[in-house]
Amino acid sequence: MTTRFIAAALAASALASPLLAQQVAPPPVDPAVAALRDAALTDNSAWDIVEGLTTEVGQRMAGTEAEARARTWSVAKLKAMGFQNVHIEPYRMPVWERGAETAEILAPFPQKLTLAALGNSGATPAGGITAEVVVFPTYNDLLAAPAGSLAGRIAYVGNAMQPTQDGSSYGAFGPARFVGPAVAAQKGAVAIVIRSIGTDHHRFPHTGTTTFPDGVKPIPAAALSVPDAEQLERIAARGKPVRMKLVLTPRRTGVRESGNVIAEVPGTDPNAGIVLVGGHLDSWDLGTGAIDDASGIAITAAAAKRVMDAGRPRRTIRVVWFGAEEVGGFGGAEYAKAHTQDRHATASESDFGADRIWRFEVNLPDSARAVGDRLQTALAPLGIVRGPGVAGDGTDIGPTLRLGVAGIDLNQSGQQYFDTHHTPDDTIDRIDPQALRQNVAAWTAMLAVVANAPEEIGGVKSPR
Amino acid sequence: MTTRFIAAALAASALASPLLAQQVAPPPVDPAVAALRDAALTDNSAWDIVEGLTTEVGQRMAGTEAEARARTWSVAKLKAMGFQNVHIEPYRMPVWERGAETAEILAPFPQKLTLAALGNSGATPAGGITAEVVVFPTYNDLLAAPAGSLAGRIAYVGNAMQPTQDGSSYGAFGPARFVGPAVAAQKGAVAIVIRSIGTDHHRFPHTGTTTFPDGVKPIPAAALSVPDAEQLERIAARGKPVRMKLVLTPRRTGVRESGNVIAEVPGTDPNAGIVLVGGHLDSWDLGTGAIDDASGIAITAAAAKRVMDAGRPRRTIRVVWFGAEEVGGFGGAEYAKAHTQDRHATASESDFGADRIWRFEVNLPDSARAVGDRLQTALAPLGIVRGPGVAGDGTDIGPTLRLGVAGIDLNQSGQQYFDTHHTPDDTIDRIDPQALRQNVAAWTAMLAVVANAPEEIGGVKSPR
Repeated sequence: MTTRFIAAALAASALASPLLAQQVAPPPVDPAVAALRDAALTDNSAWDIVEGLTTEVGQRMAGTEAEARARTWSVAKLKAMGFQNVHIEPYRMPVWERGAETAEILAPFPQKLTLAALGNSGATPAGGITAEVVVFPTYNDLLAAPAGSLAGRIAYVGNAMQPTQDGSSYGAFGPARFVGPAVAAQKGAVAIVIRSIGTDHHRFPHTGTTTFPDGVKPIPAAALSVPDAEQLERIAARGKPVRMKLVLTPRRTGVRESGNVIAEVPGTDPNAGIVLVGGHLDSWDLGTGAIDDASGIAITAAAAKRVMDAGRPRRTIRVVWFGAEEVGGFGGAEYAKAHTQDRHATASESDFGADRIWRFEVNLPDSARAVGDRLQTALAPLGIVRGPGVAGDGTDIGPTLRLGVAGIDLNQSGQQYFDTHHTPDDTIDRIDPQALRQNVAAWTAMLAVVANAPEEIGGVKSPR
Repeated sequence: MTTRFIAAALAASALASPLLAQQVAPPPVDPAVAALRDAALTDNSAWDIVEGLTTEVGQRMAGTEAEARARTWSVAKLKAMGFQNVHIEPYRMPVWERGAETAEILAPFPQKLTLAALGNSGATPAGGITAEVVVFPTYNDLLAAPAGSLAGRIAYVGNAMQPTQDGSSYGAFGPARFVGPAVAAQKGAVAIVIRSIGTDHHRFPHTGTTTFPDGVKPIPAAALSVPDAEQLERIAARGKPVRMKLVLTPRRTGVRESGNVIAEVPGTDPNAGIVLVGGHLDSWDLGTGAIDDASGIAITAAAAKRVMDAGRPRRTIRVVWFGAEEVGGFGGAEYAKAHTQDRHATASESDFGADRIWRFEVNLPDSARAVGDRLQTALAPLGIVRGPGVAGDGTDIGPTLRLGVAGIDLNQSGQQYFDTHHTPDDTIDRIDPQALRQNVAAWTAMLAVVANAPEEIGGVKSPR
């Protein structure tokens, strides 16, 4: 810190080195953008959305009646906020619903364990199954197991996931959940339990989808809480065969209706392209989906409202609260399909909780390079640095980005995100109101810059 | 801090005020006591006990087969540690066991809530009950409700419990659990749900016993996790009638065997009285009872072993791992009844987790006043201060203390205890190994001082 202060002082003084003096001065921040940004630091409307949705609807699992209630709630809310063209775009998708779920060590040390089925898990008979557990400390150990070696067994897969600011440990350890069950099934396992893909040490299992490719029959698949996974590993380390009884009775309830909720701030220039922002409305069923993703829809809508209330922007801002993200990104795919004729200037998604934004990245055409520079200056006072990467995050905007739409990512810190992600503990308690306001301020500044940018923002090469 | 340092420097200098200079110098610490104390700061045997019991037995609800397995485990463990006279003293007690437990808001905002039945809760029919909820923000509000006003309703009672170092907020807010259900029943309620008597903000309900006096029929009674309680309050604050469906099917399974596990370090002087230490072996059924109270039995046994290994003490040290504490203190009552003929010098209990000990208090006869002073000097290097109160903590040693036995309390910090107390999260994850070692060091020093004290330690006036 001291070094940085000294460098800044030197740069500002006659003693500054030629190198420092030659650095390009950052573009000044438009005072209107700065004012909007700073006013957002007292925002209450994002909290109001999170509090309302998580209280008055609660969990809203994709394709269920609860998600339908969430859409009804959302339309009323977005209209009340003053948005235009508020409507639902329905689609249909296959629905998976949780059933009973219990796990019990029968030998050598009888006791119950806490777990939750993974989305797309197969089911045991109602009376459960009993089998010996084979412990794989890591996903790679599971991969190395010989073909057929898990016949009649329950596979267990551990991990060593730690928190990371950029969330990269989810990608590193997630495969145990994403595809571990399919791998275990192909090696003959009758079921699989994994250590939760999470970074907390509380007895909350972390659910999430897993995928079985065509031709692989889904086996019962569940995540143990981290303490329960460690307990199972301690028990297994005693060296005696571990027998587990598992009851998991999720079911597929058929193809049902889901939908995207859309609202707009109409722009003055219909040819300038749409600035798409949003998050997902659906949630997992264990918590109330406060960080995942009530906060994302709240942050983006609150920011759009602030820009709207300041006067009509050049570009239309479109707020989309996507449906059915958690269970396979159906809402995002349907949106891209339905809106191929729309001209999007940029797309941005908030789906990483409500902790402070620490970084932004862009994927902008050369013609709009200055937009990125202005964002850098506008966001710096919020403690947000420009990252070296190319923007392109987001399950819901992914299909749109892949069409060549420019992107801007605002990255929240992931240090705490996977403590709560997909657990019963994903409730409003986990949200820091001040951090939420910093998010709104960042998104407000971004929208104010981008929606009003005079530059053309045309297509880009998709990073994905 | 600075002021204190200055005072210490003054006291040690020629400039010290007459008042400071006149203070009695503390007694020097016996080097053998100091050596035992400091060696205990590298203790692993307490961790070994907690890890073993919570892994190889897990939860051990009073009067169940799991508690019986815990006794068998304990006898083997205490014998392996080298204790003498290791045995079980059985008794019989009434057993209550948890059943199904679900809560669901049916209106105005349908959603499930997380809760756990309180010990001694009555049961709903298997299909549950549905009734309107009456919200009482505090226990006093429940007390103020007119007779009969809860007829056909479910009472909800909130609280504002905060962490306290001495755990006193448990006494302040606990009555909502201890007797709130009986009060609600007497006013006609068909059931009661309370905000957990806890200080965390995670979705873990805190169980614990409640008591229905003779003549009051037990109603279904459960604790919501703190986030769920806040959710219910938010929902009720919307002003519409709240209808809740409650399924709680605990049952009384009759009178069954429990027992105390006893082990001794025989002393050289059979007339000097027994130094009684211990904790409770049983646990609630939601977690594995690591902080409540595997840590207490581990700390006291590990300390006793350290004194034993250093040579035979003057007084017999008796380690008791009491049974059936959680559900009504049966083990402690049975112990006192069975040992009225024994001469106890002192009794001390560890049943407040494994956080660092910050304070000790004594209840010693005048003849043994110097023992308290020596404890003060021996414990000070561990960061332990002498409290102004009179020792007398403990459900299990309470019946013995009430016979006029001297007492010494070593008080752990309660700042985090009620985050985890009686929840599924009471697992080994919550124990800091270094804090556990500080506990062992404190108990080792205490035992080394007390068991070898040359003074007579006779009876005292019981504080309770």
